[in-house]
Amino acid sequence: MQDKNQTSGEDSLIARYFMPLATDPGALGLVDDAAVLASSGEDIVVTVDAVVEGVHYLAADPPDTIARKALRVNLSDLAAKGASPAGFVLTLALRSKDDSWLRPFADALGEDARAFACPLLGGDTVSTPGPQMISITAFGRVPKGRMVGRTGARPGDHILVTGTIGDAALGLDLLTGGAAGGALASDSAAREALVSRYRIPQPRNALAQALRDHASAAMDVSDGLAGDLTKLCAASGVSATIEVASVPLSATAAGLVARNVVGVETLLAGGDDYEVLCTVPPARSDALIAAGRAAGLAVTMIGTIVAGNERPRFLDGQGRDLILKRLSYSHF
Amino acid sequence: MQDKNQTSGEDSLIARYFMPLATDPGALGLVDDAAVLASSGEDIVVTVDAVVEGVHYLAADPPDTIARKALRVNLSDLAAKGASPAGFVLTLALRSKDDSWLRPFADALGEDARAFACPLLGGDTVSTPGPQMISITAFGRVPKGRMVGRTGARPGDHILVTGTIGDAALGLDLLTGGAAGGALASDSAAREALVSRYRIPQPRNALAQALRDHASAAMDVSDGLAGDLTKLCAASGVSATIEVASVPLSATAAGLVARNVVGVETLLAGGDDYEVLCTVPPARSDALIAAGRAAGLAVTMIGTIVAGNERPRFLDGQGRDLILKRLSYSHF
Repeated sequence: MQDKNQTSGEDSLIARYFMPLATDPGALGLVDDAAVLASSGEDIVVTVDAVVEGVHYLAADPPDTIARKALRVNLSDLAAKGASPAGFVLTLALRSKDDSWLRPFADALGEDARAFACPLLGGDTVSTPGPQMISITAFGRVPKGRMVGRTGARPGDHILVTGTIGDAALGLDLLTGGAAGGALASDSAAREALVSRYRIPQPRNALAQALRDHASAAMDVSDGLAGDLTKLCAASGVSATIEVASVPLSATAAGLVARNVVGVETLLAGGDDYEVLCTVPPARSDALIAAGRAAGLAVTMIGTIVAGNERPRFLDGQGRDLILKRLSYSHF
Repeated sequence: MQDKNQTSGEDSLIARYFMPLATDPGALGLVDDAAVLASSGEDIVVTVDAVVEGVHYLAADPPDTIARKALRVNLSDLAAKGASPAGFVLTLALRSKDDSWLRPFADALGEDARAFACPLLGGDTVSTPGPQMISITAFGRVPKGRMVGRTGARPGDHILVTGTIGDAALGLDLLTGGAAGGALASDSAAREALVSRYRIPQPRNALAQALRDHASAAMDVSDGLAGDLTKLCAASGVSATIEVASVPLSATAAGLVARNVVGVETLLAGGDDYEVLCTVPPARSDALIAAGRAAGLAVTMIGTIVAGNERPRFLDGQGRDLILKRLSYSHF
């Protein structure tokens, strides 16, 4: 929106902070209420994820990390679906028009939009008397009919996961005064790494093409590996067996488990991993792992899809069932 | 999401209230994090609008009307852009999982989705300790390059508006104890009609095709006719002259102005009209009005686009400039 006839604070906020991000032609420079997503016969993958202050991020989190998290949780969905990012729209519910918050927020959002080739296409900025909230709807492209769903897992498929599991949950634990803090009191580098995993997800978009090529089903791990695997199995009408000892942990997380500071169950049920969980026919498993390696990303086999309707089993090193009291984070 | 392995309250909420709405194949039955919007080379128009409790609707508003408003404000954007509805995704930030609120909300949302052929494709349900909020991103289709923008208004174009202006602002005034209530104390039908205009917008999707065919620029009037026209003119690099006596008012609104209960300025700057404001080359003006008539919708010429950068002028019956203290609602 242009400046000369400005009448509303919302418009000047948009002009000041977000117009510089709207470089894509489809954004129409944010002078319109609507954006244009051009298509040429492919499928548009649509995903929406919101983050709420005090629920998905902490009020004290730096605004640049909040922006990155708000966008990256959606990029993570696109990655798991095998889609290339195409753009996003933003709903920003703000208590105030505070430059010291908005400037780093918008700058970081713009940096990530460029880094992930996912431009801002439009949005709505509204005032709220309550907690701030950012809702992003992101778009990706896949060849027609090629989105990687949740329903294609078949008995015998290998179950693989990217990166490491549980670090973000430990980061949140640190930020909220949990037990990990005391145990890592003398290791500031480890503490910072875990907090960073909580605040700034690392979406695995580099793996999207390989997931389209090889995965029978995939989703991103956002609410906890155990709960998310349970959902994937339910959607596919299958069950699963996980070798807990194979679940990839960072050195710090493994150390905390070894010292009994946290149970591995907590890591399996902790949220905010934003890794990709996928199932792959056995013959394709090595190809996906190799594609990950080529992208600098660890991809680890953690179990196998089995027939049945039971909840997935999590087996310890002795083949005993691990009892998980909680599978994942739930809002309600 | 399926029931048998349900682990999270969010999933059961989605299953109970929103799965029945996800009839479109692209919604994947809401078992996935993502939806698919098929395309065949046309442009996808994307619009996003959020409504916040206490800001865009009142906490005491019936939940069915809140649902309809949340969807319809987006349908109104699609109408003004000349787009056919294709679907929407929903972010719902809830304080609690209250059936007496969610049931009528979801039912009404489903009714409107069917009535406007705009199916639910996906969403995110999150908890908030603050005011409830609904953010909807809606999608429409237009032939490639044919979205009706804001930048095409040219000097000489006629300025037209659908329906009547100011009724919703009067409805809000009634609900918040303003002057209109006393003046209409004995006319409950009139009061209800105004409140209904505030709570349940009537998006003008029936006019979308005609707008594509005839309009040089268009937008929906959501923040006040005066402010929205100012934005359209700024985007097009033009100015405008409005004959205030031509602005269509309902009989009730006209009566309140005649009795000096409200000034016409209040109606011109009041929000929530959700009518279409458009500019049309003079030779096409009658065709658009006729298309409106065929759809049972009044379309009224209210002024003319002129060259220049000044704010639009609003002239009274004697040709004098009306001074508007406020052009529109602003969030900040």
